[in-house]
Amino acid sequence: MPADATPSFLLVSELPSAGGRLTLEDDESHYLTRVCRVRPGERVTATDGRGALALLRVIERGRRAVVEVESCERASARRQAWVLAGAPEGERGDWMVEKLAELGVAVFQPIDCQRGGWERMKGRSDRWRRLAVAALRQSRRRFLLEVREPQVLAEALAGLPAGAGYWLADAAGSPAARVPAPRDGVTVGLIGPAAGLSPAERGVAETAGFRPISLSDSRLRAETAALAWASWWSAAVVRSPDRP
Amino acid sequence: MPADATPSFLLVSELPSAGGRLTLEDDESHYLTRVCRVRPGERVTATDGRGALALLRVIERGRRAVVEVESCERASARRQAWVLAGAPEGERGDWMVEKLAELGVAVFQPIDCQRGGWERMKGRSDRWRRLAVAALRQSRRRFLLEVREPQVLAEALAGLPAGAGYWLADAAGSPAARVPAPRDGVTVGLIGPAAGLSPAERGVAETAGFRPISLSDSRLRAETAALAWASWWSAAVVRSPDRP
Repeated sequence: MPADATPSFLLVSELPSAGGRLTLEDDESHYLTRVCRVRPGERVTATDGRGALALLRVIERGRRAVVEVESCERASARRQAWVLAGAPEGERGDWMVEKLAELGVAVFQPIDCQRGGWERMKGRSDRWRRLAVAALRQSRRRFLLEVREPQVLAEALAGLPAGAGYWLADAAGSPAARVPAPRDGVTVGLIGPAAGLSPAERGVAETAGFRPISLSDSRLRAETAALAWASWWSAAVVRSPDRP
Repeated sequence: MPADATPSFLLVSELPSAGGRLTLEDDESHYLTRVCRVRPGERVTATDGRGALALLRVIERGRRAVVEVESCERASARRQAWVLAGAPEGERGDWMVEKLAELGVAVFQPIDCQRGGWERMKGRSDRWRRLAVAALRQSRRRFLLEVREPQVLAEALAGLPAGAGYWLADAAGSPAARVPAPRDGVTVGLIGPAAGLSPAERGVAETAGFRPISLSDSRLRAETAALAWASWWSAAVVRSPDRP
């Protein structure tokens, strides 16, 4: 990145190739003009949240800011984490989403479980998507966390990619230090709700190939288990950081 | 644990040996009688937060509950994590403390840094100690997180145990997957404040033997870095859980 790049980091749904111009949506125009206070001629970084990373030159600021793409590099994710999570207590879902986004999780799939559903969180998905965007900017990631609508476990399992690594967070599982670190490809973590999975749900998960993994030497709250699992996945990356 | 053990888990400052009787303090009497609703004759588990784990039989409930120690086993910690942390933004210190306690961190040492101090959090230490106690109960741990008063970095470093592993959370550090997993003994994690450590502070930490470690492939907020570091430490335990 050039020395004059500002700390701004935009999320733009469609990024043209180098040389292309783009009029930003309201949100990003506001962010660029009012929050980052960039001026015409300055450069900013942008992603489409799906792996593209572009260097943009600001042409016009204001309510409908215009930028020109100087360079744009597209990449696909070599590693991807999906989190299937039962509902934690109280308002803890908000920060679960924020932290999963910071740690680079690709998909957040809330699971309505027999011992606890996400009803209280109805209408939260817009808020969660905003939290995910803020975390993407904060962490300067090129992949945006996808926040899905709640499903029951069997539905969610039917939609999982084949050939992934499947892990069930479980205080009585194999210690994380004794299982292979998650490298490339998709890795799925299933976290029960605050009251735990029912025996039937556990059976469904085991039949689907989920293996129990213990992330600590003690029980963790639902949201902490989700975080610890995502940290375990995130810390297993072997490359040095190459994000902007 | 016997089948009649209730989910209650008490924190008792001094635990007599087997056969001894004990009148509980107000807080624990209330917790036992009102929250857990145990009755005379029932058994509960207790810790002193310093490694002792006891099975208690309830003799009397009420405002000054009386229990008898049936068995008490004392242990010292084979692994211990200390977190030295600069201030995160807003109210994020609260959940930092809660999550560090759940993950089994032994010492939380807030660090007043050149680019950010804990002034806003003055008077929080009582609240943090309550959060640590709640997390200990939740996770049924036998070691209570020690919440210390803020210090500047040089002071805190002077008080560290010798021969520990010293790690500085740093997005540009060695990937966690490429450094030895923290096993027995003391491991110390240093996390900068939201605005980062100053170059001078970084120098002080490096001179003291802190090595930079990257917990993710991207930048993390201060509180997320603390969590990810503690998760890394916690997930490296090789024993299966043996907590009650």
